[in-house]
Amino acid sequence: MENVKVALWGFGAMGSGMARMLLEKRGVDIVGVCDAHPERVGKSLYAALGVERAGRAEVIITDKIAEALVKGRCDVCMIATDSFVKKVFDKIKFALEQGANVITIAEEMSYPKAQSPELALEMDKIAKANGVSVLGTGINPGLAMDLLAVCLSGAMTRVDGVLCRRVNSLSPFGETVMEEQGVGISVEAFEKGAKSGALAGHVGFAESIGMISDALGLGVERFEQQMEPIVTKVDRVAPHGSAKAGNVAGINMSGQGYKGAKKIITMEHPQQIEPETEGVFTGDYIELSGEPAISMQIKPEISGGLGTIAMAVNCIPHVINARAGLRTMIDIPVPRAIMGDFRDCVDPDKKIVR
Amino acid sequence: MENVKVALWGFGAMGSGMARMLLEKRGVDIVGVCDAHPERVGKSLYAALGVERAGRAEVIITDKIAEALVKGRCDVCMIATDSFVKKVFDKIKFALEQGANVITIAEEMSYPKAQSPELALEMDKIAKANGVSVLGTGINPGLAMDLLAVCLSGAMTRVDGVLCRRVNSLSPFGETVMEEQGVGISVEAFEKGAKSGALAGHVGFAESIGMISDALGLGVERFEQQMEPIVTKVDRVAPHGSAKAGNVAGINMSGQGYKGAKKIITMEHPQQIEPETEGVFTGDYIELSGEPAISMQIKPEISGGLGTIAMAVNCIPHVINARAGLRTMIDIPVPRAIMGDFRDCVDPDKKIVR
Repeated sequence: MENVKVALWGFGAMGSGMARMLLEKRGVDIVGVCDAHPERVGKSLYAALGVERAGRAEVIITDKIAEALVKGRCDVCMIATDSFVKKVFDKIKFALEQGANVITIAEEMSYPKAQSPELALEMDKIAKANGVSVLGTGINPGLAMDLLAVCLSGAMTRVDGVLCRRVNSLSPFGETVMEEQGVGISVEAFEKGAKSGALAGHVGFAESIGMISDALGLGVERFEQQMEPIVTKVDRVAPHGSAKAGNVAGINMSGQGYKGAKKIITMEHPQQIEPETEGVFTGDYIELSGEPAISMQIKPEISGGLGTIAMAVNCIPHVINARAGLRTMIDIPVPRAIMGDFRDCVDPDKKIVR
Repeated sequence: MENVKVALWGFGAMGSGMARMLLEKRGVDIVGVCDAHPERVGKSLYAALGVERAGRAEVIITDKIAEALVKGRCDVCMIATDSFVKKVFDKIKFALEQGANVITIAEEMSYPKAQSPELALEMDKIAKANGVSVLGTGINPGLAMDLLAVCLSGAMTRVDGVLCRRVNSLSPFGETVMEEQGVGISVEAFEKGAKSGALAGHVGFAESIGMISDALGLGVERFEQQMEPIVTKVDRVAPHGSAKAGNVAGINMSGQGYKGAKKIITMEHPQQIEPETEGVFTGDYIELSGEPAISMQIKPEISGGLGTIAMAVNCIPHVINARAGLRTMIDIPVPRAIMGDFRDCVDPDKKIVR
């Protein structure tokens, strides 16, 4: 069987991380990279990563997707450019129409019917018409605050409520994330940014709650979310951002899914730089109430960056093998690390580049 | 759509627990129960459970499977009678040949190719010939020491090693389990029983290690396991068993999967009555080394009895929807609690009783 052929669309921290991971793996090749950043265009993929080419075919980063993604030469296109369904839709459409399966880390794509049911239907149609599938994944949404809770609930005879809490550190992230999460700004500036929509906060609660509710049949009818500043009492300094005492060290997001007046699903997700300075320790927590109750913790939290890169790359065989259409993490087999040859994980009948 | 129709084969603690759970659910009916126990045969299912029949069709427990499982009247047959592939094979064959999908909690059936590759192939053939599927599941093997580790590894770019540790209490279990696990006997009797095979210990390490190794492509070539007595320093008393100081309170099982000389997968599973009396606290622990490392704990451990009942019942829609053949937990979608109508989880094209 030919190696699994992958094109990358977007070569920021996530896209380049996927490339780095793929180059460590067996039975898989990167066949094209598309990125708009002027400093990257025209560069060799290997030079951009600072990695030896080591006999592999040359790949030059291009800003023209038609050069990076050629019909019949690609099994999967990885899209790491946007967070929102509306913004990533045209890219997904293009890739599907080239006959490529698609994995995207756009947060809303983890469960697109939650907020964009029409576009979800449209993507499902396009994928089916082209005999391929499209999947959104990542660490969160994608695993830590949704799929993992779904998986654990399999051991329960009755679920009364779901609480997912992810406490993470923003310290490893770059300047863009610092800005999006309001690190270092005053409380007044935060309130303004929250109102205007300038502060992104976490994108994905509507999707995680929708996924859990549909998977378990919990019948959530109404969704709410809130955004609060995490005000630091001490000066905090991280590599790409800092916050003086009294200013904002990050964002505390919370979300709820209701059935009637009853809160069934709760999400809590405080993100900040240097949480340890005020005795906050990071972790992923899932509390499932019902029979039997299940209380899970992962400490420290699963790394956001590496986790997202891994989830996307590790789902490559799943998206090739999947039935044509729009797929989500709850209708493919469990994700898993791939330490063997990618080709051994792929159904030969589903391979595009033979 | 007709309700999902389920036949139960085996009505001990697990089979009757599944019945109890099913009667709480929507869109699913129990259509037959087969059990050999003379005290149960001829009794009404509802009387045997001490549950109101409440307008449901009568079901009389029979010791003739041909009465409980009738071709065309059953979507899934649940088999809760044996632990080993060789012992349960004929039952599975019979059920598949009646055109029913099969779920069994026989531990070795969670990954039958680990120790019975020929029978696994045979079952796969029979299932395909009848257009149905067969799945082995449970809490362990099935989730706590295998599928959950597989799922978490999906967030890792590289896995170097897997450690699964399940520390549980035997106190809730009955006399059969006390005997199988050597509770209360002397250390000498334990050594004899371990040699002769009279002490069952945990069944499933070969399956859990095989499942993890194949899912991740870890290439385990060799499997070992050990059984040690847990000798209590204090007198311990549980509802169905007890152990004097100096005698055996339970079994400590350990297992390893090697690639060459390297130990890649480690299983540790101490089971005992009243572990708290010597400061042992129960829990499920998974340690994945690699990038990023993941350290998970669930405290207390997921209940063995309820967990197995739930896993089996919650997989009913999955086994109906699955491609025909022998399936395992790593090739169906993630398990999940079913709080809605069972029919909403079933692909109408795959339904047997229409």
